[in-house]
Amino acid sequence: MKMLKRQNIASLLLLYFCTFVNFFNFTNALWPIPQQWSNGSSTLVLYPSVEIKLTIISPTSEDLSIKTKKIFNSAKNRFQQYLIQEKYVSPNVKFNIPTHPSKKILQLIEIEVYDGNSELELGVNESYCLLLDTSRNYYSIDDILKTIEIMSWNKMNVFHWHIVDATSWPVVSKKFPKLSEKGAYDPKTMIYTKQDIRIVDEYAKLRGIRVVPEFDMPGHTHSISGGYPELISCINEQPRWDLYAAEPPSGQLNPARKETYEFIKTLIPEMASYFSDKYYHAGGDEIKTKCWEEDEYVKKYLSSNSGSSTETLLAKIIDEIQNTVISAHKIPMFWQETVATHDLNITKDAIIQVWYGNDTVKNVVNKGYKTIVGSAEYWYLDCGHGGWVGNNINGNSWCDPYKTWQKIYSFNPINGLTDDEAKLVIGGEALLWSEQADPNNFEQLLWPRSSAVAEVLWSGPQGLNVNEALPRLHDLRFRLVGRGVKAEPLQPLWCVLHGGCDMPNS
Amino acid sequence: MKMLKRQNIASLLLLYFCTFVNFFNFTNALWPIPQQWSNGSSTLVLYPSVEIKLTIISPTSEDLSIKTKKIFNSAKNRFQQYLIQEKYVSPNVKFNIPTHPSKKILQLIEIEVYDGNSELELGVNESYCLLLDTSRNYYSIDDILKTIEIMSWNKMNVFHWHIVDATSWPVVSKKFPKLSEKGAYDPKTMIYTKQDIRIVDEYAKLRGIRVVPEFDMPGHTHSISGGYPELISCINEQPRWDLYAAEPPSGQLNPARKETYEFIKTLIPEMASYFSDKYYHAGGDEIKTKCWEEDEYVKKYLSSNSGSSTETLLAKIIDEIQNTVISAHKIPMFWQETVATHDLNITKDAIIQVWYGNDTVKNVVNKGYKTIVGSAEYWYLDCGHGGWVGNNINGNSWCDPYKTWQKIYSFNPINGLTDDEAKLVIGGEALLWSEQADPNNFEQLLWPRSSAVAEVLWSGPQGLNVNEALPRLHDLRFRLVGRGVKAEPLQPLWCVLHGGCDMPNS
Repeated sequence: MKMLKRQNIASLLLLYFCTFVNFFNFTNALWPIPQQWSNGSSTLVLYPSVEIKLTIISPTSEDLSIKTKKIFNSAKNRFQQYLIQEKYVSPNVKFNIPTHPSKKILQLIEIEVYDGNSELELGVNESYCLLLDTSRNYYSIDDILKTIEIMSWNKMNVFHWHIVDATSWPVVSKKFPKLSEKGAYDPKTMIYTKQDIRIVDEYAKLRGIRVVPEFDMPGHTHSISGGYPELISCINEQPRWDLYAAEPPSGQLNPARKETYEFIKTLIPEMASYFSDKYYHAGGDEIKTKCWEEDEYVKKYLSSNSGSSTETLLAKIIDEIQNTVISAHKIPMFWQETVATHDLNITKDAIIQVWYGNDTVKNVVNKGYKTIVGSAEYWYLDCGHGGWVGNNINGNSWCDPYKTWQKIYSFNPINGLTDDEAKLVIGGEALLWSEQADPNNFEQLLWPRSSAVAEVLWSGPQGLNVNEALPRLHDLRFRLVGRGVKAEPLQPLWCVLHGGCDMPNS
Repeated sequence: MKMLKRQNIASLLLLYFCTFVNFFNFTNALWPIPQQWSNGSSTLVLYPSVEIKLTIISPTSEDLSIKTKKIFNSAKNRFQQYLIQEKYVSPNVKFNIPTHPSKKILQLIEIEVYDGNSELELGVNESYCLLLDTSRNYYSIDDILKTIEIMSWNKMNVFHWHIVDATSWPVVSKKFPKLSEKGAYDPKTMIYTKQDIRIVDEYAKLRGIRVVPEFDMPGHTHSISGGYPELISCINEQPRWDLYAAEPPSGQLNPARKETYEFIKTLIPEMASYFSDKYYHAGGDEIKTKCWEEDEYVKKYLSSNSGSSTETLLAKIIDEIQNTVISAHKIPMFWQETVATHDLNITKDAIIQVWYGNDTVKNVVNKGYKTIVGSAEYWYLDCGHGGWVGNNINGNSWCDPYKTWQKIYSFNPINGLTDDEAKLVIGGEALLWSEQADPNNFEQLLWPRSSAVAEVLWSGPQGLNVNEALPRLHDLRFRLVGRGVKAEPLQPLWCVLHGGCDMPNS
């Protein structure tokens, strides 16, 4: 079998392995499907004793070759474990086990990689992300590691870790210890230490996955106010929190106090140092100017600085955040508001994450920015669960309805773009916000719907159709369940076994 | 503490126990709340060594007293296990642990019951049901036992087991062995034997819960066709299944063949004998006449029996089903269609289950039937997950949207009824259909939303409000999670801890 789609070695290896392990009708049990591949005509038997050989073509540096081999060996070991332990019987893929006595045995798998391609980088190759929000509700490191492992089976290569938000600050900082002491849900048990983060980072790297942290600022920062109230404006305004924040509790970094700028300059380098990846997501979304307009320090600043406004204050604080990120040798990422709603001075090196609207994608790329698309209309996995605000009997979620895998699968992130514009769309992302998710239900919300996102991004949105995909997605979902993932069922098992559960008119 | 709400002994005991175990602000941690209760002014400390004493007042028979004691002892043992093992710390209920040295210790709990009330019966007292559909997707006996245990904590007292449907027939019959051999998803592993069912029945009984099975006929019977195709009309019509059934695969018992009537007369007594409860749900919903109109046997019957029609054939087969249930010493239950859509000759002893519309409730009780209400508009827990038919990109579930706990909590099953009419509403039911549910996600779909149903039914719908209920429901949900139930989170933990997550305008 040959594969022409570029991909990192860890996933590539799993692809080869999945392909051979079950003697099967190839396309029926492959997810996500590569853009191009070819196969021979014989059925081969694979034993755990198969030799797996790596050849590095055009090694660019010894360092990179060492990394490549490390990732290769890790993937090889994981695969061999599955080969020995896993007893997966597909409910719907019919196997073609050869009956003649002289079965052909697969002796050798050769994998060739170009060294420079061994670790994907945002902005260089495609990226297929997942996010997890660990602030609204807390997830253990084990939950996160398991999610990363599942991502690797789906060839997703960036874990976007929305690690803090208004509700809690689980990350332990040495420079600002009160952040987690007062801002975590539990300062002893519901935290992430630098060491925890390093474990996640390394675990992900061996699976071909990069970890991009997000420290959202200046909005969504109420959780800082527990330890450092002087830094935050409009702390938990009630009951009209809606005037001050997109959701309760309200709070934004105070842009009119010098302490805030010192905080930014000290905290960001420390947090950035916890992660090995080049990119650092700095947020920048959902600013409410009223929060600042009523702040005494802001009022004083505006009256003593002519020409200033809450908008210039926003520009000032975003400048400080961006410069600090760059000084920490990271490339910043921001949410769409920074360039689509406000007109902030964001470097063209940055990546802008779009969370709403194909129009916004066009707008952002036309301003010359690279973008990652994670549409709330299609790829927000938390939608459709009703309003989580407590007393609203007829409340719905703002991004209703629930995104079915079919809806997810139908999204084309580059829809309506010219070829040149589309080049700036460097990836896409499935997102799970955690207002109504936690370790008790997040696997069901993530899988197998994130797998549908993975295929759109990896195989490309062109030519996909739900009829062709459904039996493969069923197979993948049962494979996930077989590996202990609490993935949602898509249909009654009867439909998996027999088909015949389509809408008659479509 | 005194309780005035009538309830079975198993739940009553758990209520007492829950009440004392945590020294707490009583109302904040009680779910469902009784209609009336009183308490003293001292805080008492409870040790596992507390004596728990049962007094049976006005024993009506020795047999009943023995049963009552058995249920009491089982509940007492379960409670003592929790008292020893459970380490529950509520995230939001503030405890009032007395600090003075001479704590008062609770020495004795006395429970008084009227013997005749020790086992609730449908039609005698209120019933608070859950359903589980084990045909669309299969659940293990352990899944079912766990669900029954959780029901008991919520004071739900009827487990409505929708045990077979069009998609699979997991129940093993000695009279018709091919039912499960050809109709179960797996004839060895995905079945329920008589012994399995007895285990469930006994387990439930010790928890004050009755098990009412449903063998839905004459529709929803495609699964019979695997073993006995001669009994079924319009077997799996494709692709226009929608003309023949509410959902694929189509198939209805053939009312024009004498073999069908023999099947009914033999199968129903056997299936009824597996369950100890007096009631037997015989289905009767969602008949499509086209399925019969095109059947050769039906055509022949209609042409040779003047005055006959598919409607008279429906009446004939329902008569046979009803008479057989009654002959098997059971009281039949049917879905609303039997008396609201068709005008079938259903005994007034039967219970009619309404699944759609307050109008239908009024209609059914005005015809003199007792009814159980499980509204699709409010209490169907599977809604809002999108269309499960495979190729429908914009498909929604027919009973959209997702029913939030707030919506569930706002439903009044006796809305718009006179007092006399309301007397015929003898219970309500939360329902989970399993097209998109299986052991991987059903707990999240059931809990804690079924708990909201339980409180509406147990406490009565009058005077409930979501603001008062929310902190208690949070507490219950964390208690469930603490006991290993994968109950969904309702809000970010911040809201649980601090409140302040309500809609400003309502």
